[in-house]
Amino acid sequence: MTYCVAVLLDEGLVFASDSRTNAGIDHVSSFRKMRIYERAGDRVVVVLSSGNLSVTQSALNLLERAPPGQAGAVYACASMEDVALSLSRAVEQIKLRDGPHLEQSNIEIGASFIVGGQIGGEHPRLFLLRACGEIREADVATPFFQIGETKYGKPIIDRVIKPHTPLRDAAKCLLISFDSTMRSNVSVGLPIDLCTYRRDSLLVGMHKRITDDDPYFRTIHRMWSDGVRQVFAELPDPHLDPRLNAEFDPAN
Amino acid sequence: MTYCVAVLLDEGLVFASDSRTNAGIDHVSSFRKMRIYERAGDRVVVVLSSGNLSVTQSALNLLERAPPGQAGAVYACASMEDVALSLSRAVEQIKLRDGPHLEQSNIEIGASFIVGGQIGGEHPRLFLLRACGEIREADVATPFFQIGETKYGKPIIDRVIKPHTPLRDAAKCLLISFDSTMRSNVSVGLPIDLCTYRRDSLLVGMHKRITDDDPYFRTIHRMWSDGVRQVFAELPDPHLDPRLNAEFDPAN
Repeated sequence: MTYCVAVLLDEGLVFASDSRTNAGIDHVSSFRKMRIYERAGDRVVVVLSSGNLSVTQSALNLLERAPPGQAGAVYACASMEDVALSLSRAVEQIKLRDGPHLEQSNIEIGASFIVGGQIGGEHPRLFLLRACGEIREADVATPFFQIGETKYGKPIIDRVIKPHTPLRDAAKCLLISFDSTMRSNVSVGLPIDLCTYRRDSLLVGMHKRITDDDPYFRTIHRMWSDGVRQVFAELPDPHLDPRLNAEFDPAN
Repeated sequence: MTYCVAVLLDEGLVFASDSRTNAGIDHVSSFRKMRIYERAGDRVVVVLSSGNLSVTQSALNLLERAPPGQAGAVYACASMEDVALSLSRAVEQIKLRDGPHLEQSNIEIGASFIVGGQIGGEHPRLFLLRACGEIREADVATPFFQIGETKYGKPIIDRVIKPHTPLRDAAKCLLISFDSTMRSNVSVGLPIDLCTYRRDSLLVGMHKRITDDDPYFRTIHRMWSDGVRQVFAELPDPHLDPRLNAEFDPAN
């Protein structure tokens, strides 16, 4: 199972994905579910992927390997929207090529992506490519996208993330979102790939693989768990009606 | 959308469902998604339902309307397992009767149920009837079942509910679970039907419809929201590596 999430903030972007493998080529930091494309001073593009790995990897390879300058190559796109459309076209191309073959074996060829970053003079942008082919862009009303096992980790994002949320709070929030997801679905697990991008820097802010011995993650995991239990314990007990009171009164 | 949840505890059972309509006949408290069957000193049976209303209502009617004493009637079953099996057979019967007709109109005929309670000398038991026909019983390792929109409200249950959790804490927990669900999925909403059953009482402990002007629910909704935000705010900021520190240092 996969869980990927990205947020678009006034200060920039934060991306997180669960991942257990990685591979790197050249200046591309390539992970299983997070790929980062950076050309300092020109662009930072981050792609998170979920679904059939054969489809997602082949589509990303198409996006990466087009000769420099050719339309569709990630480093040739003039805007983030171009990147999203190029990736979408790459997915369609791969589905045409491999779909009939994979479907003969009843293999699900669904693939979805989150694509975010900043190119040249554009403002930072964030797109969702759904498996059905639909493309959506994040805005103030929808400042985040999730793909994969999205629901367990959504309540904390709903509570915390606003466009003015600082990058550091958003990074913390995404880690707590992962913590909730991993607690309720054991097939989503560490390590987590985390990446931040500060608006107009045109440089990757940080990217970090968080493993199970990460002291910071262990600390917030424990503090969050203890804190939430404490808040729960301090909520008043239910006294909903006389019958409930009788029910809940140990003296009865 | 529906959300229903029930927990099996050492002290008894707690049930909750979202619901906006209700109807009552005789000694049956009948709600849209929660039906309660009580014969004082003999049995308490609570059924939560999700899915095609035509199928769930027809199946429950079959379970209720069988002549007294006839095998399959909810008041004639000798055990909670019998109730679960009778309901499962009723669903199959309704699907045979209505399925072809409904499917011609592309109507989804899925139906799932949570069935719990206590009959005579048995201990309290809790069953899940999945739409595929599978029946599962709750035990120490799986002390709760959910149907419908289950995921948003699961993390708090995972954190709080243990077999030794008191009924009052479990009732509070299910309300918080609903609060999280309603926050993340607006199609699940108040009122909530809440019902508790204390082990060996063979009487419904309480049943209560919680509406949006319920003072207790409003209080825990606000305290929970404020408390969770406070815990989040008190978590240390991320300092994951030097690059991250630079990224997150506002002086840079």
